[in-house]
Amino acid sequence: MGTIAGKDFIARLNRLDIEIWFDGNKIEGNISEHPAFKGIIQTISSLYDMQNDPKIKDEMTFSIQDKKESVGLSYLQPKTKQDLKRRRKMIEHWARHTHGMIGRSPDYMNTAIMSYAASAPLLKGRNNCFPENIQSLYERAMKKDLSFTHTFITPQINRSQLNLGFSKDPISAKVIEKNKKGLVIKGARLLATQGGMTDEVLVYTAPRFFFDPDEAFAFSIPSDTKGLKFICRESFVGGDSFFNHPLSSQYEEMDSIVVFDHVLVPWEKVFFYDNVDAATDLKLRSSFYPFAYHQVIIRQIAKTEFILGVAQSMVETINVDEYQHIQDKLSEIIVGLETMKALLEKSENDAELDEFGIMRPSMIPLQVAGTVFPKVYPRFCEIIQLIGASGMVTLPTENDFDSNIAADLEKYLRGESRSAPDRVKLFRLAWDLTMSPFGTRQIQYERYFFGDPVRLSTYLYKNYPKDYPIDIVDKFLKNK
Amino acid sequence: MGTIAGKDFIARLNRLDIEIWFDGNKIEGNISEHPAFKGIIQTISSLYDMQNDPKIKDEMTFSIQDKKESVGLSYLQPKTKQDLKRRRKMIEHWARHTHGMIGRSPDYMNTAIMSYAASAPLLKGRNNCFPENIQSLYERAMKKDLSFTHTFITPQINRSQLNLGFSKDPISAKVIEKNKKGLVIKGARLLATQGGMTDEVLVYTAPRFFFDPDEAFAFSIPSDTKGLKFICRESFVGGDSFFNHPLSSQYEEMDSIVVFDHVLVPWEKVFFYDNVDAATDLKLRSSFYPFAYHQVIIRQIAKTEFILGVAQSMVETINVDEYQHIQDKLSEIIVGLETMKALLEKSENDAELDEFGIMRPSMIPLQVAGTVFPKVYPRFCEIIQLIGASGMVTLPTENDFDSNIAADLEKYLRGESRSAPDRVKLFRLAWDLTMSPFGTRQIQYERYFFGDPVRLSTYLYKNYPKDYPIDIVDKFLKNK
Amino acid sequence: MGTIAGKDFIARLNRLDIEIWFDGNKIEGNISEHPAFKGIIQTISSLYDMQNDPKIKDEMTFSIQDKKESVGLSYLQPKTKQDLKRRRKMIEHWARHTHGMIGRSPDYMNTAIMSYAASAPLLKGRNNCFPENIQSLYERAMKKDLSFTHTFITPQINRSQLNLGFSKDPISAKVIEKNKKGLVIKGARLLATQGGMTDEVLVYTAPRFFFDPDEAFAFSIPSDTKGLKFICRESFVGGDSFFNHPLSSQYEEMDSIVVFDHVLVPWEKVFFYDNVDAATDLKLRSSFYPFAYHQVIIRQIAKTEFILGVAQSMVETINVDEYQHIQDKLSEIIVGLETMKALLEKSENDAELDEFGIMRPSMIPLQVAGTVFPKVYPRFCEIIQLIGASGMVTLPTENDFDSNIAADLEKYLRGESRSAPDRVKLFRLAWDLTMSPFGTRQIQYERYFFGDPVRLSTYLYKNYPKDYPIDIVDKFLKNK
Amino acid sequence: MGTIAGKDFIARLNRLDIEIWFDGNKIEGNISEHPAFKGIIQTISSLYDMQNDPKIKDEMTFSIQDKKESVGLSYLQPKTKQDLKRRRKMIEHWARHTHGMIGRSPDYMNTAIMSYAASAPLLKGRNNCFPENIQSLYERAMKKDLSFTHTFITPQINRSQLNLGFSKDPISAKVIEKNKKGLVIKGARLLATQGGMTDEVLVYTAPRFFFDPDEAFAFSIPSDTKGLKFICRESFVGGDSFFNHPLSSQYEEMDSIVVFDHVLVPWEKVFFYDNVDAATDLKLRSSFYPFAYHQVIIRQIAKTEFILGVAQSMVETINVDEYQHIQDKLSEIIVGLETMKALLEKSENDAELDEFGIMRPSMIPLQVAGTVFPKVYPRFCEIIQLIGASGMVTLPTENDFDSNIAADLEKYLRGESRSAPDRVKLFRLAWDLTMSPFGTRQIQYERYFFGDPVRLSTYLYKNYPKDYPIDIVDKFLKNK
Repeated sequence: MGTIAGKDFIARLNRLDIEIWFDGNKIEGNISEHPAFKGIIQTISSLYDMQNDPKIKDEMTFSIQDKKESVGLSYLQPKTKQDLKRRRKMIEHWARHTHGMIGRSPDYMNTAIMSYAASAPLLKGRNNCFPENIQSLYERAMKKDLSFTHTFITPQINRSQLNLGFSKDPISAKVIEKNKKGLVIKGARLLATQGGMTDEVLVYTAPRFFFDPDEAFAFSIPSDTKGLKFICRESFVGGDSFFNHPLSSQYEEMDSIVVFDHVLVPWEKVFFYDNVDAATDLKLRSSFYPFAYHQVIIRQIAKTEFILGVAQSMVETINVDEYQHIQDKLSEIIVGLETMKALLEKSENDAELDEFGIMRPSMIPLQVAGTVFPKVYPRFCEIIQLIGASGMVTLPTENDFDSNIAADLEKYLRGESRSAPDRVKLFRLAWDLTMSPFGTRQIQYERYFFGDPVRLSTYLYKNYPKDYPIDIVDKFLKNK
Repeated sequence: MGTIAGKDFIARLNRLDIEIWFDGNKIEGNISEHPAFKGIIQTISSLYDMQNDPKIKDEMTFSIQDKKESVGLSYLQPKTKQDLKRRRKMIEHWARHTHGMIGRSPDYMNTAIMSYAASAPLLKGRNNCFPENIQSLYERAMKKDLSFTHTFITPQINRSQLNLGFSKDPISAKVIEKNKKGLVIKGARLLATQGGMTDEVLVYTAPRFFFDPDEAFAFSIPSDTKGLKFICRESFVGGDSFFNHPLSSQYEEMDSIVVFDHVLVPWEKVFFYDNVDAATDLKLRSSFYPFAYHQVIIRQIAKTEFILGVAQSMVETINVDEYQHIQDKLSEIIVGLETMKALLEKSENDAELDEFGIMRPSMIPLQVAGTVFPKVYPRFCEIIQLIGASGMVTLPTENDFDSNIAADLEKYLRGESRSAPDRVKLFRLAWDLTMSPFGTRQIQYERYFFGDPVRLSTYLYKNYPKDYPIDIVDKFLKNK
Repeated sequence: MGTIAGKDFIARLNRLDIEIWFDGNKIEGNISEHPAFKGIIQTISSLYDMQNDPKIKDEMTFSIQDKKESVGLSYLQPKTKQDLKRRRKMIEHWARHTHGMIGRSPDYMNTAIMSYAASAPLLKGRNNCFPENIQSLYERAMKKDLSFTHTFITPQINRSQLNLGFSKDPISAKVIEKNKKGLVIKGARLLATQGGMTDEVLVYTAPRFFFDPDEAFAFSIPSDTKGLKFICRESFVGGDSFFNHPLSSQYEEMDSIVVFDHVLVPWEKVFFYDNVDAATDLKLRSSFYPFAYHQVIIRQIAKTEFILGVAQSMVETINVDEYQHIQDKLSEIIVGLETMKALLEKSENDAELDEFGIMRPSMIPLQVAGTVFPKVYPRFCEIIQLIGASGMVTLPTENDFDSNIAADLEKYLRGESRSAPDRVKLFRLAWDLTMSPFGTRQIQYERYFFGDPVRLSTYLYKNYPKDYPIDIVDKFLKNK
Repeated sequence: MGTIAGKDFIARLNRLDIEIWFDGNKIEGNISEHPAFKGIIQTISSLYDMQNDPKIKDEMTFSIQDKKESVGLSYLQPKTKQDLKRRRKMIEHWARHTHGMIGRSPDYMNTAIMSYAASAPLLKGRNNCFPENIQSLYERAMKKDLSFTHTFITPQINRSQLNLGFSKDPISAKVIEKNKKGLVIKGARLLATQGGMTDEVLVYTAPRFFFDPDEAFAFSIPSDTKGLKFICRESFVGGDSFFNHPLSSQYEEMDSIVVFDHVLVPWEKVFFYDNVDAATDLKLRSSFYPFAYHQVIIRQIAKTEFILGVAQSMVETINVDEYQHIQDKLSEIIVGLETMKALLEKSENDAELDEFGIMRPSMIPLQVAGTVFPKVYPRFCEIIQLIGASGMVTLPTENDFDSNIAADLEKYLRGESRSAPDRVKLFRLAWDLTMSPFGTRQIQYERYFFGDPVRLSTYLYKNYPKDYPIDIVDKFLKNK
């Protein structure tokens, strides 16, 4: 066993009997053929195939000890800075292949599971904790190249600071019963991206100020576990045509609400329960954040390279690169890109071994990058719109170019350096990137990837070591 | 004759044989029944009906001299400040009815025609100018309550400052022949909003630095004139369901490219041709801009009121009004709204009679408002997204609430002060307003309404009287 | 009695025996001759003279009933919109004369006293309240044309939200004894602008969440009351030379800390004490804010006109008006100016009679203007710096132009349209306006004029009537 | 010979007979005792002493070949990345000692001379070029530890794009005669920081579009060369008291205009003349920019650390760290600091050997940092002001704390965690950093350090390699 082929991933998915609701109907038949899912499943499948591509197999996989099979490099627990660089390369391959558009490419969740397993000893000997179940999930996932999503956001009925969210009939998914077989869960979680399209789903609760012990659990279960329901939002696939909807036709991941209707979680799948401290530690003291940020920043860099390419292609197409305000806008993207790259590199250079022997990337530069990107990404999209101007609206379709009206379009819509179909194709890409439901969902997604931007600033401020700057000011003031 | 009923507007439109291309097909049959057009046509029809609504008929219409029929107040050429206030009221009625979402509500083009006619004497006695044709269009339009669009943007193959745009085979629509019957036009114009859905289309060229005399013309012709083709962009109607797509289902106006394939424009429809100065004067010295800005600012105010309502409703629904950063964001919308209102009022208070006896709103406050709105409107949309957070993505459909999964949704998606369906309906509205193709097109539309924002600043700076401020500084420096 | 001459103001001030500390010394001798105060006292004196200037006396004063003497129009309690316009004209005269640089020009405090007196009936019949003392202060002030400052900010030892500020030995000025003669006050108040340079000082406490009843008082006492001390900050007067320091040499107002060292406040000067509700009502329900904002916004408009003049003069001097980014920056100032003017006008147009028969300007437009200005003013200063570039640093002095090196300077520092001395004079003005201690204190002053900008947004949001926007969204959602 | 002591630097300076004009007078006597210069000269002197401090001598100096004396490490021409790190350490020592406030610390100009010498072969064999003179200056400077300033900005009489600046009687310094002894120069240069306080002055012209060959020269001459005059601006030293003016009393560098009144430049000091291409190449193709940026970015990082310390000290002093908007503001400084640090490190990691065997830091990350800092530095200063609020104005003096009023101040002005004198000292530092003439000049200085920010964006955009991003978009569009 080890890395799987794309078609195996699809076949395994189609075999699962997952309860997915879409536009008022329970999905029947192969999910890989459903219009809302086929594009993204095809794309994920192509990512799995890259692991077996002879040209880059060495950069995408590694071998464990004396085993013959190679496994996905996203499962590698890095012990050296060299390992970290290998992880970067692997993430980069996948991110560039999908232009940074896939938030839940397999490396994201594999990285999460790798890091939780690496830090599982944190839970050793603590109440209601089963670190061995994390380790065994890690091994199983690696061996079978399982796909995952995770879900941890509680429904937001009332976001007031004073609202504790306690209630009798659970809204947020909670343990409502413990029995011989396992935990029984009832309630909901919001927003599992790719929810219903993965082998398993990892469930936990984001730690917070008032933390109900009944929510202090974590486990991973198959997506077709009885009582588990995925309710999709409206699909943002614009259609099958690559010309018309180059991004949404292949990269739209879908988000779903996850409902737990008396779901039984067998003991051997439980990481911990009824332990608020354990929940907090596994999130904040494990290497989850350093590795998750590392993966995400690499993906966002690939995305920014793509955006810069789109912007510059538009500039050349309509020949506006002499305008100072255009140069200024492009340089904003360049500044963002180079800043992200420098911060990523610094996080790797400053990496240190943690208490479990894992080479963790340095957190501060990653946190800074994670604070910067949610601000610059929406601005990049705005810049694309400002370059495109009315061209972002003058958007005929593939069919138009294949009709009697084509000659007119070819004449009146050509660009300085592109034919009309090529120009329209480029501008449709710019539209799909920044103005389509797919594009605007990406903006919201990046904005909130690591949580409310307002809180990200707070965390950065609180985590940041301030002794040195305070000290130099004290010395300055006292020295004279 | 005089104001028409909504159904008459529809009937007249369906009778025209307009060449409209949509997704590679020429539209056949009644345009009012086509999925991409029926919503907006229905909405425009309801605007016409408002003119006949006894409750507000007095505010929507006026009578000319000794005629019995009342005509639309958008045709009123104001002679007093009181007239100006009447115009404001009429515009407000239409804008509020459509929440400021319709850029080409009938009052916009009626206002344009009213103001061109009022300033037509500018063209008197000049070469190739026929001011009487403008006046007769005005009278005909008023009598028949005709509907219009206009188109004046030239194709943007090369936007370099050094590109003069001259070419043999015309890209930008030009006069290629003059004969006994009239002008023959060949080439294209970009972006006629509602192009193909109006009785007539007003065609001219925006004055510019290098102005080809063959483009220096203006005329209005029926939309079904031979050789005239409207090529639509992709439709942004999300579907019929008001629940799912409350705005795009009724307010999506469509934009089209207008192609002139040897279109003959009869002499009696020509305002002028081959006269660069006349073209410039009619645009810059007529009352077109003061009245067009006046209409637009009123519409944008109605839109901002709606946005404030959406934002505040979201805040209450998820109970976040205690957060200082939320208060700050809402106050940004309030500041924008009140600023626009104050500037509008000042333009009316400072109105003056022009050389033709027309009471023109003062231009500077309107220009300031027109500089402010393209900057604040995208920010308003961003604020809506920041309030909505993950709620902007968790968006099930009307069908979901009408299915077996409804009970789950009703439980997990309710808001503090709204049931789940009501909450989702509100958030879907917020999404349609800011993240759907309809919503993002509105952002681009408002951003560029009066042209490139970069140039708007330049115009404002150049038009602004700077003598007084210069003078006080001179006095200050010399006085001592 | 009635309006006084400038020299009377100076003479009266010099007669007072006020305890003012400056740079470690108690000021002895005539304050009007002290280097830190002579410029501003001369300027204030010139304002008093304007009331007697025959050319504008009618616009600066009014007569009460059958009295012969005319009194300052800043004391006029407006009953009509016409009165309000008269107030605007008077304020404008004073503001333009001093280019909006004087925060405590006499009209500011006169307006405060006028408005408190107009609303004094609010205190009628309430515990420990003496509205008649407010009225008698008003009459006395008007008759004698008294000068005032006020002080209400408590020392900021700990600004934590949880800090109640209670303490035994008072920090914030408090009533520590009540006796037959009056109240005894101990403690301090921060930041009396022009503190020590006025006939009287009005003392109260800004209402807040935890409001110590011992601080809930208000009174006005002569500046030379026993135990009252004014401790000045460092002076920002750059020197006597108008060429070198055109603003600070005449407009630097000085700020001081006010210490109450067992100050006895006679009963007849007390407005109220030990009444938290009265303190809150007199601040929030009186017409103080509407009239104070009205005065301030007019002053800020005059200041903005001056800034626009300085900016445009610089642009012409170094001939940079062809640059698009310069045009954009200037248009920012224009937008700010016209926005303020429109909001001011709207506040007057929407004025209404209050319960006491006073014509109050409408508060919302004023509040919006008061939220806008603290944001745009620092930006205006930045724009001046960005226009000036290195010219803001290349600043020789008046003496240089009067020395052997003058010929070199005249050659190398001239501008396109100004001689070197004139150019340097202008750039020194720009420097004094935005980069000198005087200029940067002005930035801080405008930023905090009506309090912490963070809170201004909150107040605006809370005060704003949101029923209509909420209602239109409700109707929109329900209507279908 | 080699590194000198601080006192030697001062003695050598006092021995020079430099023509410096200050406030209309030619400075006579020892410049090191003049109130406007003594602070900075003392500070520079302490920097020279650091080179001889046994604790860090190894990090501040290096030995050449078989010479015994050690010379300043700022003269080291790096051949390896290790050398580059040594340079960074040396620069850091000096920058931290002076808190990043000294733009012309000796390393800046030493670095310039080191890099020009390293690239001097560029001029080999070209017309009117004397690369050997650059090399000999480098050796002389290193041996004697000479101090330098440079001056290259031409007077800005007319900044219009169309103004070529040609004139008969030279405004901008030009060669007006060539004779046996050397070049004769007449005209002026703007803004030599520390002009008149250094052993020599390096003179050249910034390349530009229309480049007069008579200005295409470069040379270095002693500051007391006949005909050379330095005309100072007003001094920004606030006074001697460290308590009152902690920064300006020791860090104010002075800027001066440099006048060339028929200055004879001996041939052996000329680098080149009358060669536009050489001038352009030596600026743009030499390693000047990479090394100058490297030095500047390190200094700016030290400055930012100091600013963060001041901000955080203020936050703790008045106990406001619980406010979300305060946390957000501090995190802005942190983001700026970490971004600069990451970019600096990347420039070193990506360094490459140039054609002359010198290890050049990578330019793009440095250029990005140099684009970022001019934007964030003014914002940092604004943040300091926003934290300080009214505390930035309530600023008594050292004398006040040494007077009879001290007890009052000690009571009413103390902070949560600091005594009143300590609190005031800190807030005075904050004021001197951001609001004093010294502080605002620093803002302007950083804003324009590498030229007009508008142009910096243009350069970055033009220099940036865009092939890869363009390529991935092309592949994306074609692939399907």
